Amino acid sequence: MKAISETIGRQLAHRSVREFTDRAVPEEVLGALFEVMNRTATSTGLQSYSVIRVTDAGQRRRVAEVCGQEYVARATELFIFVADAYRNGAIARAKGYDGEEIRDMDRFFQGFTDAALAAQNLTNAVESLGMGAVYFGSILNDSRAIIEILGLPKHTFPVVGVGFGYPAQEPQLKPRMPISVKVFENRYELPEDFEETVAAYDEEMRGYYDTRANGRRSDSFSDQLVARLENTIDNRAKMLRVVREQGFELGV
Amino acid sequence: MKAISETIGRQLAHRSVREFTDRAVPEEVLGALFEVMNRTATSTGLQSYSVIRVTDAGQRRRVAEVCGQEYVARATELFIFVADAYRNGAIARAKGYDGEEIRDMDRFFQGFTDAALAAQNLTNAVESLGMGAVYFGSILNDSRAIIEILGLPKHTFPVVGVGFGYPAQEPQLKPRMPISVKVFENRYELPEDFEETVAAYDEEMRGYYDTRANGRRSDSFSDQLVARLENTIDNRAKMLRVVREQGFELGV
Repeated sequence: MKAISETIGRQLAHRSVREFTDRAVPEEVLGALFEVMNRTATSTGLQSYSVIRVTDAGQRRRVAEVCGQEYVARATELFIFVADAYRNGAIARAKGYDGEEIRDMDRFFQGFTDAALAAQNLTNAVESLGMGAVYFGSILNDSRAIIEILGLPKHTFPVVGVGFGYPAQEPQLKPRMPISVKVFENRYELPEDFEETVAAYDEEMRGYYDTRANGRRSDSFSDQLVARLENTIDNRAKMLRVVREQGFELGV
Repeated sequence: MKAISETIGRQLAHRSVREFTDRAVPEEVLGALFEVMNRTATSTGLQSYSVIRVTDAGQRRRVAEVCGQEYVARATELFIFVADAYRNGAIARAKGYDGEEIRDMDRFFQGFTDAALAAQNLTNAVESLGMGAVYFGSILNDSRAIIEILGLPKHTFPVVGVGFGYPAQEPQLKPRMPISVKVFENRYELPEDFEETVAAYDEEMRGYYDTRANGRRSDSFSDQLVARLENTIDNRAKMLRVVREQGFELGV
């Protein structure tokens, strides 16, 4: 597909970059990236997220251990995005607010969404500068540990990590399921040829060489999916327990 | 701040656009936007989200009622992003999978994050084409109603809406809290001058004229925050009940 803007051209070429050169990200670039994050749309203007830039080698190693991915520690820059109702709680209390709403799930999900939007806005900015990025959803393998490592206060919760820098690899574009099974008009409805579409996608995925797997050919999407489901990490399935430990009221 | 890429220049100029001209978004542009969404990074490659493009006037009106914002129905394009474990559940079952992991909170949060990232990627693409966009977090004012309106199956959940089109307004840039209270190195720690920073931001916000409020001057951030907290919508605070009704296992 022909790109109709430079930004879209880069978005269509997006792939995760996991290995980076030694070149540092200049301070002025970091400053611009912080401003981009800060300008991201935010639910009802409340800016309910924070970002921890992890530079300390020991902390990076501990985060990488949670992720089970040693390259996490080697990313040139490592940002952890955090849903944050704590800061606004402090601001509201200084105004005399003494309610419980600061810890409800509305706040949690606003913060979670804000954090994810800011992460993607950062990724687009990073890629516009010839750098590459990778998401670390794996920080949630042990959200308690991440909270401890980063000193996250009550009413905050880690959402996702982003590693970025100047790319030292050029991975193959990873196949995606076609939009016909993902984008619907007016009502959710899988198309009649859903099974055939998945079968064709499974075949396409078998032709994909995963850079992470030392160039080994991939399993089909369906097989990867079942393997993922059968290897669910208990901590992740029970994440809401940690959300509650962080002082949020689940409201259930 | 001087922009160091065209993309970043636009990101730094981001504001919500809520009113659009009559100009339609051409089909080939929509096609490119679908491809951009589809290329967005996705947790463990599982693509656990879907998008409903709402074109039907009656459905748009009902979504706008949930949002309590009549302009939702008037957006040139209206996309609702959905966390989706249903599609992968169907794929896995066709492979003989009969486990319960498809409905755990790991799947829910993967889908929620995937949906939010795709929404922001769409927004960046839209803005690269001279269009404007606005998020509708207000779809969660009544997630049950949105599920019914869009025919969302079990193991899906609405995350956020995006309206976009060619702008018919040029709102003022909305002030943001400085990054010094949002971005931390290694550990979460509000700066010593936190209170002064908030006071200065409150003052800056009073100088902001909100296009939505017919050009009325804004309240301070702190006052807006407390008002928001005191007007929490019960449906939003108790969103997890609807998540459970959608067949997810909360694991708490």
